[in-house]
Amino acid sequence: MPREVTAFSNPTVKRLRSLRDKKARRAEGLFLAEGLRILAEARDSGRLPEIIAFSAQGARHRLAAEIIAAAEAAGAEAIETTPDVLSKMSGKDNPQMLLAAYRQPATALEQVDRSAAPLWFAVQALRDPGNIGTILRSGDAVGAGGLILIDDCADPFSVEAVRASMGAIFTQQVAAAPWSDFVHWLRSGPGQLVGTSLTASTDYLEAEYEQPCFLLIGNEQQGLPDAYEAQCDLLVKIAMAGRADSLNAAVAAAVMAFQVKASWRG
Amino acid sequence: MPREVTAFSNPTVKRLRSLRDKKARRAEGLFLAEGLRILAEARDSGRLPEIIAFSAQGARHRLAAEIIAAAEAAGAEAIETTPDVLSKMSGKDNPQMLLAAYRQPATALEQVDRSAAPLWFAVQALRDPGNIGTILRSGDAVGAGGLILIDDCADPFSVEAVRASMGAIFTQQVAAAPWSDFVHWLRSGPGQLVGTSLTASTDYLEAEYEQPCFLLIGNEQQGLPDAYEAQCDLLVKIAMAGRADSLNAAVAAAVMAFQVKASWRG
Repeated sequence: MPREVTAFSNPTVKRLRSLRDKKARRAEGLFLAEGLRILAEARDSGRLPEIIAFSAQGARHRLAAEIIAAAEAAGAEAIETTPDVLSKMSGKDNPQMLLAAYRQPATALEQVDRSAAPLWFAVQALRDPGNIGTILRSGDAVGAGGLILIDDCADPFSVEAVRASMGAIFTQQVAAAPWSDFVHWLRSGPGQLVGTSLTASTDYLEAEYEQPCFLLIGNEQQGLPDAYEAQCDLLVKIAMAGRADSLNAAVAAAVMAFQVKASWRG
Repeated sequence: MPREVTAFSNPTVKRLRSLRDKKARRAEGLFLAEGLRILAEARDSGRLPEIIAFSAQGARHRLAAEIIAAAEAAGAEAIETTPDVLSKMSGKDNPQMLLAAYRQPATALEQVDRSAAPLWFAVQALRDPGNIGTILRSGDAVGAGGLILIDDCADPFSVEAVRASMGAIFTQQVAAAPWSDFVHWLRSGPGQLVGTSLTASTDYLEAEYEQPCFLLIGNEQQGLPDAYEAQCDLLVKIAMAGRADSLNAAVAAAVMAFQVKASWRG
């Protein structure tokens, strides 16, 4: 049975709250997800939390109650608490009625099975956790296998990234590696590495994309380093009509991915 | 000549800082933009600020100095200040070396010249200022004319929206109107209203898009109201491969816009 907890000083409350911090996430190997929609997505993907906190309102909601019961049956710690405490843990003024801590999956490149999907995202030094979460969400929508984080990226298990992923953090594989390890792994099997570049001569609408296709997206400010572009199998350009010379990184990733997928229908 | 200001209590500092608040923006008719890239974009689009603040480092930068001089020549108030004060005004720990206040343009629908571009964005009850800015940025990239904000949307002149627009707030037209006014205006001239819907039967890759095309994007949580969908000339579906049933609103807007543009290449 869930315990009722109302004190901010309760150790479970403090532990959940600490997971908003990257160091604590790393030390514990856990991450936070909030809200019925994302927790249901997790459950439907076979993932249950290790700790779950909810409001009285949450306990009365049918789907939420199912998730709480399933988590408890699997050994999770469950606490019923107040909206104020939920707000404190999530850092949001209007907290969701559910909040939970999940075990972080392994992010070694070796666990990525490239044959599992025709399309993968790889991002290099992407700094905005919202972009990382949004790319995961687009990856789920477009049928990508997952996201490979190259070099020093924002944490995909941060609250912001998980929120922006809308649950895709549970359905997309996530791996992380320095560039040299990524290239070594990539070249150990089939795969076309496709970069977007302002100086490319091939229009993204006219390129031929092979499977598995790895879409490489660079840092928000700098784009891809020249040396990385040089190692791509294909460089394509999204023609820009306006004054600006770039798209938001998550937008560029999605525009590329939907075009790659469209090109394969032909 | 610019004055040197180091006090947080300086009236110009307080005035600039107040523009992070929507009420103050509305009362003053001004909005904040930060950073050399965005201020240069504004200058290149013929827009100069009414107030400009910069660090000593900013004053030494050639392009920044040009913008400061042009603004002063046009009658702007210019202050040289410290990174601490810039940080206080922008709300960011690592402030840009330039920050300025610009006059908000008129946002009446009547000032929108639909013949100026083949493509326009319309968003309904969009709540995330980052999404609004990102759609402006994509609009600039894809050659759209501008963005029409329908019903109660986030403020396109908020610091977050301006930042995400990467300067497109100065190149894209922005209008705002309730739905009934928008429909009345739309039907007073040519224009195809295109909505995206999960229940549409037409694939977005197979639809015929007419010019001018108005892409209608709904609220982040609820999507478009049924009654609004019913008034669209065309409803299309972006097929989803994964578990999730939706894309981020700014991503959906961009995927649609780039496909519409691609379809016109013939």
